[in-house]
Amino acid sequence: MINTSKINSLRCITCGTTYEPYELDYTCPECGARRGTLEVIYNYDKVREEFLDFVESSDEPDIRKYEPLLPVEDIGLLPPLRIGGTPLYPYHDMTDEIDELWIKDDGGNPTASYKDRATAFAVAEARRQGLKTMTCASTGNAASSLAGLAASAGVETVIFVPKAAPGAKIAQLLVYGANVFAVDGSYDQAYDLATEVAGEYGWYNRSAAMNPYLVEGKKSGALEMAHQLAWDVPDRVFVSVGDGSIISGICKGFKELEKIGVTDKKPEVIGVQAEGADTIANAFDRYEGEEVTIEDQEAYTMADSISVGKPRDIVKAVKYVYENGGRYMRVSDEEIKEAQVELARNRGVFAEPAAATACAGFRQALANGELNKDDRIGVFITGNGLKDIDAVKESVPEPEVVNPELSEVKEIVEEKGLN
Amino acid sequence: MINTSKINSLRCITCGTTYEPYELDYTCPECGARRGTLEVIYNYDKVREEFLDFVESSDEPDIRKYEPLLPVEDIGLLPPLRIGGTPLYPYHDMTDEIDELWIKDDGGNPTASYKDRATAFAVAEARRQGLKTMTCASTGNAASSLAGLAASAGVETVIFVPKAAPGAKIAQLLVYGANVFAVDGSYDQAYDLATEVAGEYGWYNRSAAMNPYLVEGKKSGALEMAHQLAWDVPDRVFVSVGDGSIISGICKGFKELEKIGVTDKKPEVIGVQAEGADTIANAFDRYEGEEVTIEDQEAYTMADSISVGKPRDIVKAVKYVYENGGRYMRVSDEEIKEAQVELARNRGVFAEPAAATACAGFRQALANGELNKDDRIGVFITGNGLKDIDAVKESVPEPEVVNPELSEVKEIVEEKGLN
Repeated sequence: MINTSKINSLRCITCGTTYEPYELDYTCPECGARRGTLEVIYNYDKVREEFLDFVESSDEPDIRKYEPLLPVEDIGLLPPLRIGGTPLYPYHDMTDEIDELWIKDDGGNPTASYKDRATAFAVAEARRQGLKTMTCASTGNAASSLAGLAASAGVETVIFVPKAAPGAKIAQLLVYGANVFAVDGSYDQAYDLATEVAGEYGWYNRSAAMNPYLVEGKKSGALEMAHQLAWDVPDRVFVSVGDGSIISGICKGFKELEKIGVTDKKPEVIGVQAEGADTIANAFDRYEGEEVTIEDQEAYTMADSISVGKPRDIVKAVKYVYENGGRYMRVSDEEIKEAQVELARNRGVFAEPAAATACAGFRQALANGELNKDDRIGVFITGNGLKDIDAVKESVPEPEVVNPELSEVKEIVEEKGLN
Repeated sequence: MINTSKINSLRCITCGTTYEPYELDYTCPECGARRGTLEVIYNYDKVREEFLDFVESSDEPDIRKYEPLLPVEDIGLLPPLRIGGTPLYPYHDMTDEIDELWIKDDGGNPTASYKDRATAFAVAEARRQGLKTMTCASTGNAASSLAGLAASAGVETVIFVPKAAPGAKIAQLLVYGANVFAVDGSYDQAYDLATEVAGEYGWYNRSAAMNPYLVEGKKSGALEMAHQLAWDVPDRVFVSVGDGSIISGICKGFKELEKIGVTDKKPEVIGVQAEGADTIANAFDRYEGEEVTIEDQEAYTMADSISVGKPRDIVKAVKYVYENGGRYMRVSDEEIKEAQVELARNRGVFAEPAAATACAGFRQALANGELNKDDRIGVFITGNGLKDIDAVKESVPEPEVVNPELSEVKEIVEEKGLN
């Protein structure tokens, strides 16, 4: 028996039609896969009553701590790994120009990215339905997250990647035991193929945005950040944006905390896109509160996890940020590389380029005088730099080559002033 | 002012001479760098009084929780990252042949390996002494750990690597801002050069085993595992062994917990070496309780983090395991690869080959009937597979290449029985 007392309904982000909990798996049939993404609407009165007591008395080290606001009736259906529960580092010493700066480092998740927060709930829903196989199309973090978390839960995976995807990323899927299909075509063709095959066999589909529970998982980072700051949320948070799911989750998380009275405000949510992959930022700039207009584009950025020209969660990502009072900004690949090196060098946090993008946004806003000194800032770091080690090679200097002679080393040490 | 009331002395592992706390930085001058490694001896009466109350009332999410048994007088000197506090996963369902199997997954540490536990204390000691620069020789996890943790603490690093080290590993050091010297010579030449340069400039040396605080940090994994099991320690634990420092730390941690009365026994500690790099196992087999005889060798194994022919902490690693009542075993590269794939596939834990080696030892012991069904087993997973993604490529199958056509996929799905 499903106890659905905490979920009230599923609601289409575009037409607003509501559906019964668990009535649909993916998207609103009226509005289609792209515009018809669903929101999970809770019974907020019930959540309000239970949430704080539950959180404060929980011994769970991870997202399970926030169960009353998460879309799972049986927490035992989550994969048996530690999802979330990641550190929030104070970095106020980064600059005299900001009083409080917090970095939420999600690189230590089981598969080293923020995506695990979302995948956990897709796996739980597949298990609830008794489905033995899950699928998705992805070249990156979503795929490795699905492969790893499903493996831990004994669920089979079939993953579609474009044939041109890097061998290292495919190897990571294969080591988790995923059945990988390398599609001789584009990412979009792989995406459509995954959807078709999932329909054919009744497999559960974790492809980006199709699935209302993914955004729910992604909001857990906002819940954690707020909790780690004793519910005194930042004034502004910076989030890297590709498909639009993470920022949608983060907006929803902060909004719901305010709605149930746990916090007394929401942070301004600032989405940061790469200049060459700014479809959502463009749609946001055109948006005036009515229909979201979508103009897909060719994406080009070195930050491959956000190199998305046809973002699947664009409608939520535009509407939620608009409602939040937030905004979008763009950074160059050069700014991304600088932020990546700065984070590693000064903070010991090695972020993948897509994750450093949020930090690049913060740095740009700071440099442009768009922040106040007494602002309290949060930055979400959504993936580990080890995911894409080749990307840093061009951002760092060459090592000094020496013979094993003290004199040679001394010369360089003294020339560089290291002594 | 240093409050040294918790540290009683530093004691040479070979001659037993004791020194005042902080009297020496590295090794016993009588016995030399290799045989003269030092043990940190605590004031155990004081620790016994304080330890449990401190741990149980601590809100720290990481190793700081175990402060009374760690060699730092001012906990604020540790790098400002979350060190340890890693998950312990129950994996009893792995086999019907064992009642309890626990996997301690250290891959989520700041630089994705167990080494961070040790580096944290080297950084703290450098800061205590007011030293601005740290150095080490390493191609692997120790180097990236030093580069990352020192960066977070504002300490400069100079790291010596053999010129032949993989570019990806060097890039990781450089992104953290390390000054990297690529030595045209062997690892041993790089090691000696680092020692010489450190002496010349008074830099703090984090090279393996030289430094008594590294083993102290490495014992924190044992403290955590015991705590996560409510002080009811496993019967046997499996640990991968290269230089010998981690296993020495783990032996010492479990021993000290028993000594202060927090646990009522020690687990049997089983060191697992790669067949092609078994210098310590060989020395252990020859050992009869007197002097440790050392016969270095050429190392050859695909598990590069434990591919060590001249292990620096061999004396402790032999003596501690002997005293523990434990033993050493050897596994083949084939067994390591199998364990790596098994861990990822069935458990969602992607371990680097050196880390999967501990699991390979468990599997071999189980297959050989050396374990009892009611044994409670712990396995330490000491590094993330993302560190060495190329190593898995030969252990996994090729992906299926298809055109973006449903019919092509269906044929393979049905042939493989995935439907």
